[in-house]
Amino acid sequence: MTDLPTHDRPLPPRRDVDSLVFVNTGDGKGKSTAAFGMLMRAAARGWPSCVVQFMKSGRWRVGEAESARRLGVDWFTHGDGFTWESDDLDRSAGIAREAWRLADRVLTSGEYRLVVLDEVTYPLTYGWLDAETVVARIRERAASTNVICTGRNAHASLVDLADTVTEMRNVKHAHATGVRARRGIDY
Amino acid sequence: MTDLPTHDRPLPPRRDVDSLVFVNTGDGKGKSTAAFGMLMRAAARGWPSCVVQFMKSGRWRVGEAESARRLGVDWFTHGDGFTWESDDLDRSAGIAREAWRLADRVLTSGEYRLVVLDEVTYPLTYGWLDAETVVARIRERAASTNVICTGRNAHASLVDLADTVTEMRNVKHAHATGVRARRGIDY
Repeated sequence: MTDLPTHDRPLPPRRDVDSLVFVNTGDGKGKSTAAFGMLMRAAARGWPSCVVQFMKSGRWRVGEAESARRLGVDWFTHGDGFTWESDDLDRSAGIAREAWRLADRVLTSGEYRLVVLDEVTYPLTYGWLDAETVVARIRERAASTNVICTGRNAHASLVDLADTVTEMRNVKHAHATGVRARRGIDY
Repeated sequence: MTDLPTHDRPLPPRRDVDSLVFVNTGDGKGKSTAAFGMLMRAAARGWPSCVVQFMKSGRWRVGEAESARRLGVDWFTHGDGFTWESDDLDRSAGIAREAWRLADRVLTSGEYRLVVLDEVTYPLTYGWLDAETVVARIRERAASTNVICTGRNAHASLVDLADTVTEMRNVKHAHATGVRARRGIDY
């Protein structure tokens, strides 16, 4: 019982790859959360793994970051390992560009078996980062480095590049009935 | 930047609840994995949390279970905390029924703030468990116990009961191009 799709037709010939690219997109819950769940699996296997946060999510990632660090995962977020350029007028764009400089380094260094580019789709959508450059650098990453990209509205060329793409679709959400975000659940 | 849906209309009046029910369903990846990511958040908050596995997933959950235990999460799976009734002729149905006896206890005891009923939808689909009983017992759970149910084809009454339902939709999957399940990634 796994998440692998079922097939009526025979499986295609076996293909061996060194690493995979995943995209978790859509308007529903679970895009980043599923990536963090994959970190649990990777950590149990002793894989060197890291998360690079592209958006200033404030309190929303505190819990995950703490548990990830307890599992030995490196977690890079604004104010924590990032240098800050004071002449970046647009703070969010600056954070995203700084995150990308770090991501570019960890994608090519080969030191990580799993790299989570958390909410990387937004800076592409907003034009803070050049989508073709980001996609090209992910394609040219170290051979053994698996990558998970999360965020709504994944860019078409990122979807093309990815081996596995999942859309998290919001069927219904407690928020719409007046329940506010909750500590321990939402952050 | 969160997974909360955006609204063009004003938010509904604030509603306070003691706990929530989540359903992660659909044919795509990430249903259970997102639930395990939520365990990371809950663990960081010091919430007593547990997982009850309803299907014999074999090697597929070994990594998650190990990391979860390192985070202090109780993980109940066949052969590990379950008693086994030798006169259960159908092994999978027997596992599911045993899991339900345990789940029913942890849902009502109030000792857990978060309970993951992993792959609980399948025994409902296969008729090994009575869906209305399961849904009723989730509704009557301890007030402070949040519940996450995972699995494809969530039963309509489970969807009705849930506060938040996400469909993980398979857009594309490496498996379809011949890539086999991989240690560290799929299990």
